Amino acid sequence: MALFSPLTPVFIAIICVLIGIVLKKTNGEKEKHETKSKPVSRPWVDEDLKDGTDHHLEEEEIDEEWQGLDENVAHIPFFTERYSEAEMIKRSQQFYELLNKRRSVRFLSDEPVPREVIDNVIRTAGTSPSGAHTEPWTFVVVQDPCLKHKIREIVEEEEEINYKKRMGDRWVNDLKRLRTNWIKEYLDTAPYLILIFKQVYGRLPNGKKKTHYYNEISVSIACGILLAALQ
Amino acid sequence: MALFSPLTPVFIAIICVLIGIVLKKTNGEKEKHETKSKPVSRPWVDEDLKDGTDHHLEEEEIDEEWQGLDENVAHIPFFTERYSEAEMIKRSQQFYELLNKRRSVRFLSDEPVPREVIDNVIRTAGTSPSGAHTEPWTFVVVQDPCLKHKIREIVEEEEEINYKKRMGDRWVNDLKRLRTNWIKEYLDTAPYLILIFKQVYGRLPNGKKKTHYYNEISVSIACGILLAALQ
Repeated sequence: MALFSPLTPVFIAIICVLIGIVLKKTNGEKEKHETKSKPVSRPWVDEDLKDGTDHHLEEEEIDEEWQGLDENVAHIPFFTERYSEAEMIKRSQQFYELLNKRRSVRFLSDEPVPREVIDNVIRTAGTSPSGAHTEPWTFVVVQDPCLKHKIREIVEEEEEINYKKRMGDRWVNDLKRLRTNWIKEYLDTAPYLILIFKQVYGRLPNGKKKTHYYNEISVSIACGILLAALQ
Repeated sequence: MALFSPLTPVFIAIICVLIGIVLKKTNGEKEKHETKSKPVSRPWVDEDLKDGTDHHLEEEEIDEEWQGLDENVAHIPFFTERYSEAEMIKRSQQFYELLNKRRSVRFLSDEPVPREVIDNVIRTAGTSPSGAHTEPWTFVVVQDPCLKHKIREIVEEEEEINYKKRMGDRWVNDLKRLRTNWIKEYLDTAPYLILIFKQVYGRLPNGKKKTHYYNEISVSIACGILLAALQ
């Protein structure tokens, strides 16, 4: 969907810089792992069960109540389109050619885009799979120029600290050839910004915390689908 | 691209279970952060600069040599298709309808799929953006029934430990309503398995380690694009 590929770097920037800023603030809370018995030690697999930002609930919060969907949801029969082998090859080839045109650019067009397109793109990202179907994402669309500019200021301020202090010599050096820096004019230029937040945990109707398994991986997969929808 | 949506759960399973198993084994090495000066303390942003599995190079490995692409690559002018507003709305709507048909199912068809389709799908995933354009992914296609079965055995063995020991009561309880368990017959049934590995670091031509920034996020975005290509 080559709608406005010039916008894609906005998302990349947002993914890298803003994702989770708000929700992570709560992440410093005391962590307590919920293991039934002493786990077998296979560090590379144990590690794999953790998402960098999984929020571990405190013990008193654990109960047997199911955290997810209502059990009485209607059953929707599974249906999938069937294609001939020739069609499969053709469609996969065409989709590759379309996606291969995507570039992470930093000069964007300010041409207006119908809001309906943005809504469709976000709806598409929302079809992404997620750990235990928790859908741990929030997409925020910003169109107001003042708000876009405020966001740009926050991002640039943090990015300048990243480049000068947090990232280290090697990282900054690796980026030199890509000629990127902390100035992000395109955050003003783009007709929309889509801010993508990961929810490190959710809330149940009773106010208790709901665990979001693999939330960072899930949100990143949704971002991939969002990029495909934008193309 | 509704090629064979039944295959998608394979990828999800692989993403969740196998990703990085091999490469993470090396991850226990001594970590040393490369900061120029004492970083400003904003925990939620500092945290954000780290990918769960970023591999931090030891100090003696740091040099000023650029780790990435050859500087003499040909310049390809940027080109993007332009669509009318009506076309944008129509295309975004159609893509949403296509992707919204995707389901994470666990009963797969064993119908053959041309290898060319798999190759196109992986090529498409490879167009994904990545931190500092490091492309930190490896896609391995497995077609041999014996090898598929061995993989199933490894995955099931680890998943059984996950369910019984590592994941904890709440997680297992949350999954109960989704009726999943550690038995993964579909790993035998599917005509292909695509194993997706994240490379927590790479190698330069001179043998030195190459940092892969945000490798887990980058690989997950590529997985999202892969799922879109499969649909």
